[in-house]
Amino acid sequence: MGPDLPIQLDQLAIVGTGLLGSSVARAARARGVTRRIVGIDRSAVHRDRALRLGIVDEASTELSHAATAEVVVFCTPVDVIAAQVLALAPACGAGTLLTDVGSTKGEIVAAVESALPTGVCFVGGHPLAGSEKGGPDHAGAHLFEGRLTILTRTARTDPVALERATAFWQALGARVRVMTPDEHDRALAVTSHLPHLAAAALAGLLPPELYELTATGFRDTTRLAESDPPLWSAICRQNRPALLQALELFLGRLENFRNALATDDAEALLALLAQGKKIKQDLAGGNEER
Amino acid sequence: MGPDLPIQLDQLAIVGTGLLGSSVARAARARGVTRRIVGIDRSAVHRDRALRLGIVDEASTELSHAATAEVVVFCTPVDVIAAQVLALAPACGAGTLLTDVGSTKGEIVAAVESALPTGVCFVGGHPLAGSEKGGPDHAGAHLFEGRLTILTRTARTDPVALERATAFWQALGARVRVMTPDEHDRALAVTSHLPHLAAAALAGLLPPELYELTATGFRDTTRLAESDPPLWSAICRQNRPALLQALELFLGRLENFRNALATDDAEALLALLAQGKKIKQDLAGGNEER
Repeated sequence: MGPDLPIQLDQLAIVGTGLLGSSVARAARARGVTRRIVGIDRSAVHRDRALRLGIVDEASTELSHAATAEVVVFCTPVDVIAAQVLALAPACGAGTLLTDVGSTKGEIVAAVESALPTGVCFVGGHPLAGSEKGGPDHAGAHLFEGRLTILTRTARTDPVALERATAFWQALGARVRVMTPDEHDRALAVTSHLPHLAAAALAGLLPPELYELTATGFRDTTRLAESDPPLWSAICRQNRPALLQALELFLGRLENFRNALATDDAEALLALLAQGKKIKQDLAGGNEER
Repeated sequence: MGPDLPIQLDQLAIVGTGLLGSSVARAARARGVTRRIVGIDRSAVHRDRALRLGIVDEASTELSHAATAEVVVFCTPVDVIAAQVLALAPACGAGTLLTDVGSTKGEIVAAVESALPTGVCFVGGHPLAGSEKGGPDHAGAHLFEGRLTILTRTARTDPVALERATAFWQALGARVRVMTPDEHDRALAVTSHLPHLAAAALAGLLPPELYELTATGFRDTTRLAESDPPLWSAICRQNRPALLQALELFLGRLENFRNALATDDAEALLALLAQGKKIKQDLAGGNEER
């Protein structure tokens, strides 16, 4: 398939039919990207829901059922993706494109590239879209529309595979940006992983007697704390060095607030608040993913 | 007016016709609480919009024009409320109820009570509703529906005035809870003021090159950073001791995350994330203000 042709698959396989995997399937179906979709999931509930909702045409527990697809998208937790890719790869035909939606890229891409058989291509991916609500029931065909999907390029990335992965995500409605796995992980530590920690830390300190005294501000600031703890524990652990750096930045800035408050430094406090507002305004000016 | 009768005013005055003041006016109008509404604002833009939108019947720069109202609601920044209450009070008739919507209560209530002339009653108030968007244009008649409004009681609070203030807020659709100013300030330091600092600190550390790599998670976690810096600087400064305590709690919890990450302690990390999620689930279970 030429890189400039629209993607038209005979079979797409989705490994992990949770929110993201089912949304990839729904988007692919809605946009006529594939004739048939196979979903692989060890959860009977997910398989059943994905079949009943028409998200997949076939649901299986067997990873090997994905081997006949031209494109396989791994939508499982970040700490199992690499092993699954390497388990499936030897069974795949030449030219099969394997890709993923994991929130971290460094460990996954390195592990896969260290052992991938020749003829099969892997391109790391991460659509900047999701929800704190999991499962096929919350999946949507429009989840990726206008959103950015990051694809990774390393010295070992096959250029044609990267072009196919780009065409695939664009066919789902996404914009695509190519970065190295390391660039991705350092950026997402700040823009995604740190906000998850901040939300969890803030939610976690609320005593029950104050529940009634929260409003929309507390609710929105802590929304990300509703995310699945095992999934996010794995993400944080895979991105430890960059996340620790981001956390230091955040602690430093909070200490600036503490100092301004402790010394009742009105000017410093105002400047800190104004800096946050300025950046929010710049973001709203058109550079923020919606 | 008996405390069990529905509130029916001849004239309501709103000092400060921004988002909250204009919403109080809209709610009072929609629910037939008053025959006439006077708005006081030094901003010509606010006065003009509030008049054109039918939020107030009369708009004035002169605080003294509020003196003939039976109820006056001060919706100005927390650092000017007490002085305005004390400036207006001597001109008010006996039985006038003065109240406010300030996000802090300790300093305001103490300052007012120390100098209030006899015959005029003040009850501190704080509706747990609002928006990061300011001004009459964003005001809504339904802003307080089903939300909690906190009213303050001290040793000097007139019981009948507290009952009238309760009836007034209930007439706007709010639920009412009575607390001491100190209880209010310690609670709101955690549930509202700390989230504002956290949001501002997180937004403030984002470098421009990462703007494109933010998504809904970053956006929601930092929504409160869009609030008005001078307003929030004043709120933080009025609640310094309690806010500093809340900030210490937050820093301590973030340091727990840092330690779990630094030592790659999977169990501790999972427990911290799970604690945040548990509290979010308990909040969603019905105790959270919506």
